[in-house]
Amino acid sequence: MIKTAVVGSTGYVGEELVRILCAHPQAGISYITSHSNAGQRYSEVYQSFNGLLADVCIEENIEELAGKVDVIFIALPHGIACKKINKSILDKVKVIDLGADFRIKNKETYEQWYKTEHEAPELLEEAVYGLCAWKRDKIREARLIANPGCYTTCSILSLMPLVKDGLICTESVIIDAKSGITGAGKALSPGTHFTECNESIKAYKIASHRHTPEIEQELSEFALKDIKLTFTPNLIPIQRGILATCYAKLLDKSLKYEDIREIYLKYYKGEYFIRIMQKDVYPETRWVRNSNFFDVGFKVDDRTGNVIVIGAIDNLVSGAAGQAVQNMNIMFGLEEKTGLKTVPVCL
Amino acid sequence: MIKTAVVGSTGYVGEELVRILCAHPQAGISYITSHSNAGQRYSEVYQSFNGLLADVCIEENIEELAGKVDVIFIALPHGIACKKINKSILDKVKVIDLGADFRIKNKETYEQWYKTEHEAPELLEEAVYGLCAWKRDKIREARLIANPGCYTTCSILSLMPLVKDGLICTESVIIDAKSGITGAGKALSPGTHFTECNESIKAYKIASHRHTPEIEQELSEFALKDIKLTFTPNLIPIQRGILATCYAKLLDKSLKYEDIREIYLKYYKGEYFIRIMQKDVYPETRWVRNSNFFDVGFKVDDRTGNVIVIGAIDNLVSGAAGQAVQNMNIMFGLEEKTGLKTVPVCL
Amino acid sequence: MIKTAVVGSTGYVGEELVRILCAHPQAGISYITSHSNAGQRYSEVYQSFNGLLADVCIEENIEELAGKVDVIFIALPHGIACKKINKSILDKVKVIDLGADFRIKNKETYEQWYKTEHEAPELLEEAVYGLCAWKRDKIREARLIANPGCYTTCSILSLMPLVKDGLICTESVIIDAKSGITGAGKALSPGTHFTECNESIKAYKIASHRHTPEIEQELSEFALKDIKLTFTPNLIPIQRGILATCYAKLLDKSLKYEDIREIYLKYYKGEYFIRIMQKDVYPETRWVRNSNFFDVGFKVDDRTGNVIVIGAIDNLVSGAAGQAVQNMNIMFGLEEKTGLKTVPVCL
Amino acid sequence: MIKTAVVGSTGYVGEELVRILCAHPQAGISYITSHSNAGQRYSEVYQSFNGLLADVCIEENIEELAGKVDVIFIALPHGIACKKINKSILDKVKVIDLGADFRIKNKETYEQWYKTEHEAPELLEEAVYGLCAWKRDKIREARLIANPGCYTTCSILSLMPLVKDGLICTESVIIDAKSGITGAGKALSPGTHFTECNESIKAYKIASHRHTPEIEQELSEFALKDIKLTFTPNLIPIQRGILATCYAKLLDKSLKYEDIREIYLKYYKGEYFIRIMQKDVYPETRWVRNSNFFDVGFKVDDRTGNVIVIGAIDNLVSGAAGQAVQNMNIMFGLEEKTGLKTVPVCL
Repeated sequence: MIKTAVVGSTGYVGEELVRILCAHPQAGISYITSHSNAGQRYSEVYQSFNGLLADVCIEENIEELAGKVDVIFIALPHGIACKKINKSILDKVKVIDLGADFRIKNKETYEQWYKTEHEAPELLEEAVYGLCAWKRDKIREARLIANPGCYTTCSILSLMPLVKDGLICTESVIIDAKSGITGAGKALSPGTHFTECNESIKAYKIASHRHTPEIEQELSEFALKDIKLTFTPNLIPIQRGILATCYAKLLDKSLKYEDIREIYLKYYKGEYFIRIMQKDVYPETRWVRNSNFFDVGFKVDDRTGNVIVIGAIDNLVSGAAGQAVQNMNIMFGLEEKTGLKTVPVCL
Repeated sequence: MIKTAVVGSTGYVGEELVRILCAHPQAGISYITSHSNAGQRYSEVYQSFNGLLADVCIEENIEELAGKVDVIFIALPHGIACKKINKSILDKVKVIDLGADFRIKNKETYEQWYKTEHEAPELLEEAVYGLCAWKRDKIREARLIANPGCYTTCSILSLMPLVKDGLICTESVIIDAKSGITGAGKALSPGTHFTECNESIKAYKIASHRHTPEIEQELSEFALKDIKLTFTPNLIPIQRGILATCYAKLLDKSLKYEDIREIYLKYYKGEYFIRIMQKDVYPETRWVRNSNFFDVGFKVDDRTGNVIVIGAIDNLVSGAAGQAVQNMNIMFGLEEKTGLKTVPVCL
Repeated sequence: MIKTAVVGSTGYVGEELVRILCAHPQAGISYITSHSNAGQRYSEVYQSFNGLLADVCIEENIEELAGKVDVIFIALPHGIACKKINKSILDKVKVIDLGADFRIKNKETYEQWYKTEHEAPELLEEAVYGLCAWKRDKIREARLIANPGCYTTCSILSLMPLVKDGLICTESVIIDAKSGITGAGKALSPGTHFTECNESIKAYKIASHRHTPEIEQELSEFALKDIKLTFTPNLIPIQRGILATCYAKLLDKSLKYEDIREIYLKYYKGEYFIRIMQKDVYPETRWVRNSNFFDVGFKVDDRTGNVIVIGAIDNLVSGAAGQAVQNMNIMFGLEEKTGLKTVPVCL
Repeated sequence: MIKTAVVGSTGYVGEELVRILCAHPQAGISYITSHSNAGQRYSEVYQSFNGLLADVCIEENIEELAGKVDVIFIALPHGIACKKINKSILDKVKVIDLGADFRIKNKETYEQWYKTEHEAPELLEEAVYGLCAWKRDKIREARLIANPGCYTTCSILSLMPLVKDGLICTESVIIDAKSGITGAGKALSPGTHFTECNESIKAYKIASHRHTPEIEQELSEFALKDIKLTFTPNLIPIQRGILATCYAKLLDKSLKYEDIREIYLKYYKGEYFIRIMQKDVYPETRWVRNSNFFDVGFKVDDRTGNVIVIGAIDNLVSGAAGQAVQNMNIMFGLEEKTGLKTVPVCL
């Protein structure tokens, strides 16, 4: 059994980690930490764990945890993990960081978008961007995983095959993404107060959301050239789910649906967690709810020469805790889908 | 591995059965039937099963299935199962009926509330009412299980300890129950059209819902006297969950919260799926979502002498498919919680 | 034109007052106050007022406002209005308080339920409980209106005809009320964070909600005897609406639906804002949404001798701002429905 | 008083027309027709009208109505109005068609997108596309108004100033629009069954929605060249509201927010129903709910050279019935906002 610690266990991503790990057949939770709920039973914070988890939240001490467990999951706001992690810790324990601190390879880009100094630039090279479908080999050897963001996972998986094969005009990429409100986290704010976000739709952080450089970085790596794109996130009054609608000009206007499909099959055929929809069927977030799946569908708009690729994930699972556990499975040599075989809960 | 067939697999209860059985470590789905989707892949009906279940729905033929599987789950509208099941089928296969046909022991009561003749009265005595927490011993020996209704499971589990110990005035019982809209099923109707039930609350079938005699039958059996009660169901714009708020006059006004708690502990202590909330904490449907748990809390209203008992379940799991699988586990000698250990999905 | 001031204009009840008064043909808003948004344009707080209201929120000074307007609406948390209002203010201006401070006639009862000392007990006798349908004559003469609570308006209007005519056992009354989440107000809290109340149902303050003594006071006055009842409020994930389901034993078991209907017609026939549903049709909150209507339906449960009365209102209109404006209309001799003729928005 | 008839009054657009006309100070409803509810009281179909509208739905007979009223509103599925309307009817009565039949000027384009023959091509030239802000002068003289679609109103108003002034690359336009579910109408379907669209997001009719040619026609007219664009509609689990997010490449990359703002002010300054948001504030559908407003905000993405324009309307009001009444007001010489002054209901 792999011994795990979950740091920041009472945030929403933390809760999903705890929920998934509770049911993992080859890993166990040894420690759960929470600054705001230290001293409280986890099941008092989330009554759903009544009778299932008797643990009490402790204050986080990564130094100490490093000697006691095999892997530490960190689910903290950005800017904290990079203060806590260093090479001596990585000598003792594997770390999967679900925050943003190690995702952006370029220190300046990070600081520009996150408006804060990066305190562990020396780890940026070592950190592996944990997008399982595309970075499996590096993940296997990694000591430090930068678990991808939710919008980013969905956006990159949607566009990567087209980018990798050089089929789209990289100046034309637009992503209009819609997210359920768990994506905004547990912190109270007027914009996530029920009565102010229910029964309404809104875009936010238009062309300025921090997941933008992360998507650009990964797509650029595979495009072998610098990509800049426009990214618009929207909040939708549902619990979970991201739908990323990606638009790009096809370089070859003669490409048909079937051609595009072939390319996605080429890259994704063996991927258990990636499902390519049938023709004229499009992802809906309910089909992946509560699961680690990424569903993708596409349409060629002959009239305009655009291809529209639509991807869907559960933001808390494939977009956070699920992919983190998948990363752990890869790092520890387990079958990738161990503990992640949940059938999506469509109702 | 137990071989199962799911008859009526594309209704909502059927879908939950298929979903739960897909992940059951000691049972497998051999056949799924659907009249309306015969010939279609299950994953075309519910895209959530893409890549997980390749089966095609067949037309139901219980006679034939009886010889091929160990247990048949029937998830059909009332009035059909009683036409299909007979003693010769039960000689060959175990049957768990999730409909209403075998729940009411009294043929006249059934016919009066369901407005249809009962076509297999000879099976009413043999059928075991599958409320696991209270009928475990009989379930173990049963060939035919009448799986309890959703409102009924929640209501009976909420009230039974008080009724069994004779603590409440049985003429005073009122149940005001709230259900998510999956409870109304898959059939289209104006009342479950999104725009006509979203953002609204309504009671329906007031003092006339068919789960009433079922609750009364079970409570009466344990009260050793005839109970009549007022039952009001409400539809609430959420997917899943039932909250049953039960009111009754305490016979002994000196009883305190702690006394009531003792009684619930006496009956429910060893029950894995029953959780008694701490004082001043009350069930919310989210704490049991997607799980087989029943949560219960209570309050003594000193001012009026009423006890208020609040129970919560997931109507599709503990209120239907989950309890059906628990029944199967008991019938086949498996550990009761096999395949049902899901942590509730509270977000 | 009646000159009005709205004190506490940026809370939800305040917003509804401003919205309704904006469209009132015989009243105008002279001042809007807000402690938390003082100095801000109202339309910055609520963008819905863009282009419609250019006013800036000021700090509240009731003393000063009293000399400048005809009526002051106060929409503040309990315990504040009773510090601000006194006889010398009432000599200058009419006051409609939408908080709880002047609703409970008995100082001790107020202090017991609200856990705070009442600072203006000398005004309790003068204050008129502004339940328009039952207190019209007193309202006409009043200087100080205690505008009824939301649950209370719905509950009292539902039960009053039966209580007034002595038809129910007053020891048997149970009210199970469901409210949309605007009822919990604008203050942020975990329980009204979208992701923690959406897709769930919960009861709260069971047998201890502060609207209980208010309902009891009014029913007792008309029953000519002391009534104690059990009241359970529930939060439902919708914006607006209250459904109050009231249960009571009929003293005369031979009463039929038609008899009950007669009684409601006797009391409510001329009431523009009270609508009695047809037989077998029950209120749904959507039918009154955004309007000042109170809809009521009922069912006699012959099997148990209970009558079930179901009332529905929009908690922000008839349950707060709408009735407050109706009170103003009565106080100033306008037609009662002036400015309140909105057709309910059912979609 | 203008005498009106509403044909197709029990659909959702019909209901909104009836609701708005009920409160219109200078128009009255003389006849309401409904094929599916002929013979029923309107208030039985929509209980919200109890006590407000005693009318009974009649079978539609446009010929006959033409002689009795001043204006007929037609809210029927496409393909019907063009069979019913002809020049002799227009000699007698003004017609405002809320369906699609007279929106597309080019018969072939209509037939290609709507897959049906157009039966009144001789009226296409006469019909005026009733987009009030841009076609006011023609509307004033019109006998037949083609009331714009919901997505189209929101999309055209969002983009028109940029198109008119030739500021964007017309090959680059992408519209990603999100709609509440009333937009899908009253007809039952699995995709609008509560449990199958709640808690999920989905795109549909991608690059093939019938509002596409309508948007293209209007933008092309003002661009003085042929525009083709990609349009993706999405269904969001809310009642009302459309958010149209429009993307286009700026031809002049040096344009700043302030420049764009100037252009919108130039065209929209006097428009009561059009509100330009402040910098860094973006439309949310709740700010226009239940009102005839169109809110618009924009962002220049310096990094990519795209401009993002976000528009919001209430699909049933400004996107259908509200604009229809505004058209009537213009046609009959009333002040445009008569009967449409509702403050948006943001809670």
